[in-house]
Amino acid sequence: MKSRAAIAWEAGAPLVIEEIDVASPQSGEVMIRMSATSVCQWDALSLMGKQQTRFPCVLGHEGAGVVVELGPNVTSLRLGDHVIPLFMPECGTCIACMSHKTNLCQALETTQPLSILQDGTSRFSLRGEPIYQHLGLGTFSEYLVVPEIALARINPKAPLSKVCLFGCTLTTGMGAVKTAQVPPGATVAVFGIGGIGLSVIQGARQAQASRIIAIDTNVNKFPLAEDFGATDCLNPHDYTDPIASIIMNRTHGGVDYAFECTGSLHMMATALACTQRGWGMAVNVGIANPDDRIAVSPALFDSGRSWHGTVFGGIRGHTQLPEYVEQYLQGAIKIDPFITHLLRLEDINLAFDLLHSGESIRSVIRFN
Amino acid sequence: MKSRAAIAWEAGAPLVIEEIDVASPQSGEVMIRMSATSVCQWDALSLMGKQQTRFPCVLGHEGAGVVVELGPNVTSLRLGDHVIPLFMPECGTCIACMSHKTNLCQALETTQPLSILQDGTSRFSLRGEPIYQHLGLGTFSEYLVVPEIALARINPKAPLSKVCLFGCTLTTGMGAVKTAQVPPGATVAVFGIGGIGLSVIQGARQAQASRIIAIDTNVNKFPLAEDFGATDCLNPHDYTDPIASIIMNRTHGGVDYAFECTGSLHMMATALACTQRGWGMAVNVGIANPDDRIAVSPALFDSGRSWHGTVFGGIRGHTQLPEYVEQYLQGAIKIDPFITHLLRLEDINLAFDLLHSGESIRSVIRFN
Repeated sequence: MKSRAAIAWEAGAPLVIEEIDVASPQSGEVMIRMSATSVCQWDALSLMGKQQTRFPCVLGHEGAGVVVELGPNVTSLRLGDHVIPLFMPECGTCIACMSHKTNLCQALETTQPLSILQDGTSRFSLRGEPIYQHLGLGTFSEYLVVPEIALARINPKAPLSKVCLFGCTLTTGMGAVKTAQVPPGATVAVFGIGGIGLSVIQGARQAQASRIIAIDTNVNKFPLAEDFGATDCLNPHDYTDPIASIIMNRTHGGVDYAFECTGSLHMMATALACTQRGWGMAVNVGIANPDDRIAVSPALFDSGRSWHGTVFGGIRGHTQLPEYVEQYLQGAIKIDPFITHLLRLEDINLAFDLLHSGESIRSVIRFN
Repeated sequence: MKSRAAIAWEAGAPLVIEEIDVASPQSGEVMIRMSATSVCQWDALSLMGKQQTRFPCVLGHEGAGVVVELGPNVTSLRLGDHVIPLFMPECGTCIACMSHKTNLCQALETTQPLSILQDGTSRFSLRGEPIYQHLGLGTFSEYLVVPEIALARINPKAPLSKVCLFGCTLTTGMGAVKTAQVPPGATVAVFGIGGIGLSVIQGARQAQASRIIAIDTNVNKFPLAEDFGATDCLNPHDYTDPIASIIMNRTHGGVDYAFECTGSLHMMATALACTQRGWGMAVNVGIANPDDRIAVSPALFDSGRSWHGTVFGGIRGHTQLPEYVEQYLQGAIKIDPFITHLLRLEDINLAFDLLHSGESIRSVIRFN
């Protein structure tokens, strides 16, 4: 199958649109025709060479599409199913899936980060040379082939150009609040008002948090944060004291929960420090370079705080993502305000520019 | 009241036995005649000047005694009550106590670390000059005066020269396991086989952990760890690979819970690293210098692990410590194996030497 795709030939280079070849699905795999994809910070970090991405690569991990071809031995999907690709699969049979204690399925954990499928190869190629699949997916392509365990089947009534954001942003942010079990009345700090941060804010409001403090240096994003439920918006540049102190002063000693959504190591440590002594919980949601190191005082733990992290919001793609889509259809989750730009695949480099400049929340690319 | 006491005149100096003056208890305070005290690593760190200890100081925070004088307005204690002093009080009325979410009572949080009572002074003096009270207590003295909120009343049938260890060691270690909610069948790693580590092992066995891996470089302590319930004892010096890798290999990817009981920053990071991806929990129990910094990879959180800390095992002294004493009286908690040495107050410097050389678990000093 021929497919238009945006290729990252090397770290740091602009993407190039090419017509690539997509091989037929093998055992347990399906081919998807993508309807929409969007550009997330993780794509940007990958393009910067700050992840384990293998080049040349079709980037993209947040999208939605329709099943157009089934490989042998596919049991959970049919032609025409509407699906969202999962960078965190759910095989249902590994130790992690069987434990019901985590969403960190082990089935593809050694291959997806390396931009390959389970057999070590890619279904994308150009002039006979392999093109790798970002996080084992590669949604910046009209067609792609992935294992069925890396697909969540969703309600076909849902508009794919909206719910594609459940492929990463919305699920990661709202799921993190759910996984942290934020109770009604809790106080919450959210570092970073991007797509993830706004999703955390939306989740915290849904959880009936009494106070939601959003922190960002881009004040243009404050009105949107307030629309989603932020009760306070703080710009660290407005204060001479450290922002953790400002937050602690406003909340009688600190927030109950702090979510770090920027991937900044400094903000991760700040998030821990601004939580309440005794029971404060910090949750790392943003993605950082795994080779970096966070420096924290042991006293922050001695004081009864705890530090957590989630991937994909702790949500299991097969069993829990479809519920979020239902909530969207019922009007309980807002997506429209996230989509600040609607672009063609040919304009994908603009989507990266808009992300870096802070002008966009999410640019959605529609394939048809 | 005249009282024999061991005074630390300055950081690093040997303790000196002197006859000091103990002022009468003020409002809400009581005077205790100590029966026994023991020497813990926290005393040693304080003597090294690595805590906020103010000198000259009567060290000691782990002991047991009898109420011999009541100040005005004391409501919860009577003369003759058997008590254990609390470096973590329980006032019952502060935000923390009222929350029921933490044992980190705020009543004395700004004074105890500075070796003073709530009014900023000490009841100890020598030739008219103040001698400070370690952690607001100072149990290396025959008599001492502390607020009633910093005392737990216990069953008078309990031998004070044994249950004095509930003043820190046993409660800190066993409480940490309780606070972490280790379930039956869990796998546990314990870094450091001192008094705290053995208490964690005892708590983990009581919680019916299926595997308890003890890690220490002092192999002489391995038989004792096994007596308390350790299923594996590892000496990091026996391996060329990092000890976290060894533990992960032995436990199909890591332990469910890791307790750091040495206060080493390196071991704190190791404890986090050796836990299971997806749900592993590391708990800092050992005491480190708060000015130091631990360096950890953000990837350890992204992988679903969490990091916690407890003080005094997360246990509320008034309401929960007496239950531990009852468990000891019922034979469910062992104390004897902890007490490797029984000394006189005059030999207190020997107790520090035995602790540093690793020859003792706990030296108990009996006052009568």
